[in-house]
Amino acid sequence: VQHLRRLVGGRTAREAERRFVVEGGKVLSEALRAGWAVESVFWDPALAADEEGMALVERCRAAGASIDLVAAGVLERVTDTVTPQPVVAVLPFADVALEGLRGGTMLVVSVDIRDPGNLGTVLRSAEAAGGDGLICCDGSVDIYNPKTVRASAGSLFHVPVVAGGDAVEVLERISGWGNRRLGAAVEGGTDYVRCGLTSPLALVLGNEAWGLPDRVAPLIDELVTIPMAGRSESLNVGMAASVLCFEAARQRRGTATRPTAEAVG
Amino acid sequence: VQHLRRLVGGRTAREAERRFVVEGGKVLSEALRAGWAVESVFWDPALAADEEGMALVERCRAAGASIDLVAAGVLERVTDTVTPQPVVAVLPFADVALEGLRGGTMLVVSVDIRDPGNLGTVLRSAEAAGGDGLICCDGSVDIYNPKTVRASAGSLFHVPVVAGGDAVEVLERISGWGNRRLGAAVEGGTDYVRCGLTSPLALVLGNEAWGLPDRVAPLIDELVTIPMAGRSESLNVGMAASVLCFEAARQRRGTATRPTAEAVG
Repeated sequence: VQHLRRLVGGRTAREAERRFVVEGGKVLSEALRAGWAVESVFWDPALAADEEGMALVERCRAAGASIDLVAAGVLERVTDTVTPQPVVAVLPFADVALEGLRGGTMLVVSVDIRDPGNLGTVLRSAEAAGGDGLICCDGSVDIYNPKTVRASAGSLFHVPVVAGGDAVEVLERISGWGNRRLGAAVEGGTDYVRCGLTSPLALVLGNEAWGLPDRVAPLIDELVTIPMAGRSESLNVGMAASVLCFEAARQRRGTATRPTAEAVG
Repeated sequence: VQHLRRLVGGRTAREAERRFVVEGGKVLSEALRAGWAVESVFWDPALAADEEGMALVERCRAAGASIDLVAAGVLERVTDTVTPQPVVAVLPFADVALEGLRGGTMLVVSVDIRDPGNLGTVLRSAEAAGGDGLICCDGSVDIYNPKTVRASAGSLFHVPVVAGGDAVEVLERISGWGNRRLGAAVEGGTDYVRCGLTSPLALVLGNEAWGLPDRVAPLIDELVTIPMAGRSESLNVGMAASVLCFEAARQRRGTATRPTAEAVG
């Protein structure tokens, strides 16, 4: 349990062991469904009343995980969630090498995203829109942070993720693969809907507060901006990623929009 | 302080008084900026070290709010945030009557959204995309729930909101105004990009788990679906609202997409 607490609490401990913690049955079952190795499962006596939860524990056992029943209330003190979860598990890291994303036509690059919830939402958007991978450059929050894992709602197990790498080197490599590097900018970029997004691209996302750092600017092929009706704070980086990735998906489907109801009728 | 706790904790108490609580300087300053009445402000001695925070308290005082310094640590116990805020305020409700949204060309209707964070994100999306108002029908989570207020990131003070109303009656009224009612469906609807979205519309969002209730079905003019590459859970209702509202905004700007880089070069 000390071990669990270390893995929940600290990036350093996670990176030393290359292991992290998932909290709750929903995310754990996604990990299992996606075929990730589950090393060990810890469950609270409260789970006994939850048939589905117990079945999940049994599936983890069958998949080779070690199973431990802990004293009531222990998990609640160890874990990070606002809503305590009666089951948590330890999993090995499974991020991929940068080269593994070569050939991807919709890549997302986090240069400096610091909020774990935002990074999780970005990953979730990438999955939904058909993204081929997420690269979390040095300076991004840890992709294995418990809050990120939770916010990704299982997407971590379905989209290849690269953890780390210098932003400048990453962007040079990606360009060498033929991906156009589009930097998201709160203002001053090309209106994203005017930008052709059907060729291979990498969407580059900067920090929530200050955007992309200066040293990255020369490695961006074009800045794109989402014109907004409200205040600029009204769209966070996770929502912006959704809008941009789904516009790329729209252009790639190549479907024509019907005339509006009035025009027809 | 008892009073504050009641307003934070319960919808019933909030509705009885038609008052709610905002937590933290960021949201409070948005309220002030938008010209909302701030009735009373409570601050923790920890705020004294924060020049900007104290200036905000002074602006509230100048705007007519009563100001109270509370004992250290009290706000932390009263409020709802994971990260305790050293300043909170009580504000009067300011939702509008349904009739106030007549003429809006991009309305959002929450029929059954139950998660406060999701409802806040929906409101935030609506603001960013140029939505004219949000209607929270009976059955939706309280728009004045502290978690919703927080997730809306100030949008509550910038987009007109209708709190309550039977979904069937609301949808009948809206149709009478000439707004086309589009129901968001996880599957089976028209691909949203094929749907003409330039004429006046109302985007109708159902529950996170079960979508729109049967009794609402006859009041929907067309179902729209966002085709997804990943699992259907990979997009939550807040993200879906962003994608749909921004597609409407895109069609309304009427901008043409440039050919892709390859096609040009």
